[in-house]
Amino acid sequence: MAEIGIDLQAAFVTNIMNTPSSDNTKAKDLATSLVNGDRRSLAKSITLVESRRPKDAAAASLLINAALPHAGRTVRIGLSGAPGVGKSSFIEAFGTWLISQGKRVAVLAVDPSSRRTGGSILGDKTRMVKLAQSQSAFIRPSPAGTTLGGVARRTRESIILVEAAGFDVVLVETVGVGQSETAVADMVDMFIVLVSPSGGDELQGTKRGIMELADLVIVTKADGDLMPAATRTAAEYTVALHLMKPKFKNWSPAVALVSSTLRTGVSEIWTEVQKFERHLNALQEWDNQRRRQKISWLWNELREGLLGLLTENVEIKAELTLLEKKVAGGSMAPPVAAKVILSRVLGKS
Amino acid sequence: MAEIGIDLQAAFVTNIMNTPSSDNTKAKDLATSLVNGDRRSLAKSITLVESRRPKDAAAASLLINAALPHAGRTVRIGLSGAPGVGKSSFIEAFGTWLISQGKRVAVLAVDPSSRRTGGSILGDKTRMVKLAQSQSAFIRPSPAGTTLGGVARRTRESIILVEAAGFDVVLVETVGVGQSETAVADMVDMFIVLVSPSGGDELQGTKRGIMELADLVIVTKADGDLMPAATRTAAEYTVALHLMKPKFKNWSPAVALVSSTLRTGVSEIWTEVQKFERHLNALQEWDNQRRRQKISWLWNELREGLLGLLTENVEIKAELTLLEKKVAGGSMAPPVAAKVILSRVLGKS
Repeated sequence: MAEIGIDLQAAFVTNIMNTPSSDNTKAKDLATSLVNGDRRSLAKSITLVESRRPKDAAAASLLINAALPHAGRTVRIGLSGAPGVGKSSFIEAFGTWLISQGKRVAVLAVDPSSRRTGGSILGDKTRMVKLAQSQSAFIRPSPAGTTLGGVARRTRESIILVEAAGFDVVLVETVGVGQSETAVADMVDMFIVLVSPSGGDELQGTKRGIMELADLVIVTKADGDLMPAATRTAAEYTVALHLMKPKFKNWSPAVALVSSTLRTGVSEIWTEVQKFERHLNALQEWDNQRRRQKISWLWNELREGLLGLLTENVEIKAELTLLEKKVAGGSMAPPVAAKVILSRVLGKS
Repeated sequence: MAEIGIDLQAAFVTNIMNTPSSDNTKAKDLATSLVNGDRRSLAKSITLVESRRPKDAAAASLLINAALPHAGRTVRIGLSGAPGVGKSSFIEAFGTWLISQGKRVAVLAVDPSSRRTGGSILGDKTRMVKLAQSQSAFIRPSPAGTTLGGVARRTRESIILVEAAGFDVVLVETVGVGQSETAVADMVDMFIVLVSPSGGDELQGTKRGIMELADLVIVTKADGDLMPAATRTAAEYTVALHLMKPKFKNWSPAVALVSSTLRTGVSEIWTEVQKFERHLNALQEWDNQRRRQKISWLWNELREGLLGLLTENVEIKAELTLLEKKVAGGSMAPPVAAKVILSRVLGKS
């Protein structure tokens, strides 16, 4: 039934996008070798969905649709924290432990400031050397992108691809630029926030809004001289989390102490992940959350596509820029300026 | 110069919207008597902008534009907190104190669940009896509305109107349904969160995401038997706030203890407000924040107007509903479904 579904959809998409049937076949072949575990096909697939060339768009859609029935089987974990908190070290420690337990681990990243050449600081294989060497691991730096929406979309598509390729755990790393945490939280099952042991330092303070996303907090570098500070910080975060209404009924995010160097507290993180999965499944929230995320992705795409009506027409874009200045300067009320622009846009349709 | 500006804009809007010039004149007259302090004109003006009849839309726009040059001179304060925390009592106490200091106070509310008939629980004059009786106060319940966006727009327009009418302080109350706090934080200068003395109770826990918006936290009912609990809760919130990166440089939100019944801690709130205003002015952030909020309002209106392209065309709406089901069920990938819908919408324009 899934195969018929794919063909119908392929025909559907082909019809809409006028794809040559050769692209159609190429995408299906790539999907097939991807599902069969060919590592190069996975890399090629991700490169295809990251491509911004219009001619690649249709093939990418077909590929994603072909991979979709094989996706959905991993545990998706988001990892966020300020620069320097130790995300790479943790991913190396956690990833290698998971592999020692027989799991296949993919590491992706969302970093809208990533440069096209040279990759980003996230998903940097030089920082996760041992993990990068394992055949059971797949590490991919953040796609380059001009907007968070674009980077988030490509990462979501990559999640589908690594799942179709048979990985068991997907780690999605983000460094906390702009709204990237919210974007990552919207594409994972569990969102983990890493904080440094010197938690009270305002310069390194946890970015506002992260606490509300956390399903688990990890205090890093909990070893040696930093142990007392780490313990104190863990207590402070416990107080803070206790004050908040829980995201899920009867789930109070734990605060864990981890030392990536000593490898202490690492396996306990997987225990927490499994606890969380069991808890959400009991509430039927695991699947519900994924369903909500799919719809949310759809509407993100629709909103971005519609905004193109404002930014891709030269005249409208110019008028919008002019009215934006009037609004900022206080000489025109925002709702009035919006009505003017909308009447121009909608007047055309 | 402001007068010429208004006439040019009126002509502009009239031209776009084909308003009869009689509407044009009515709106200008209403604006004039509003600015002259006529209370009934203020009520009529707010009723006009809250109206959802298409024929009132053009007059409302003209009215807002005419009022705009006279606006901007109040301090706008958002007040949020769970039901039962004591918002009405605080508004009564704070409002009457401000009036005793010679200020004119307006109270508005954002409550998207408000029913069209019977008003909402917010801005309920029966709960702020003494304040409601004062000629220096103006209390308006939340506009009824089907969407938060619609309610937020009308409240923002009402802020412009009460400012043009000469009020000094605008309090905007919200009860925390959905994203209403974010909407209110985006229309005020200072966002205050009220929490109950029994802060650790998970059922009454502060809704996640509120802490990041707060410029000040008030622990209510800090009197009698509840004093020890209130003090403890204040300490917990101080710890929690300290962990977060500040919204504004060098401003750590204070945690204040207030008893509306005993009227203790109330005048101190105004002292905090003034401290905050001075601090933000020193950073030039007061005006910057207002400028950002105007632009944000413009883009909210644009986004909502564009979404209408999806929801107001019967065929497109039907197809969207169908594809939403496929996406939720996992048989179609969200970005592919979005492409299909967008090609239909944009194909028309």
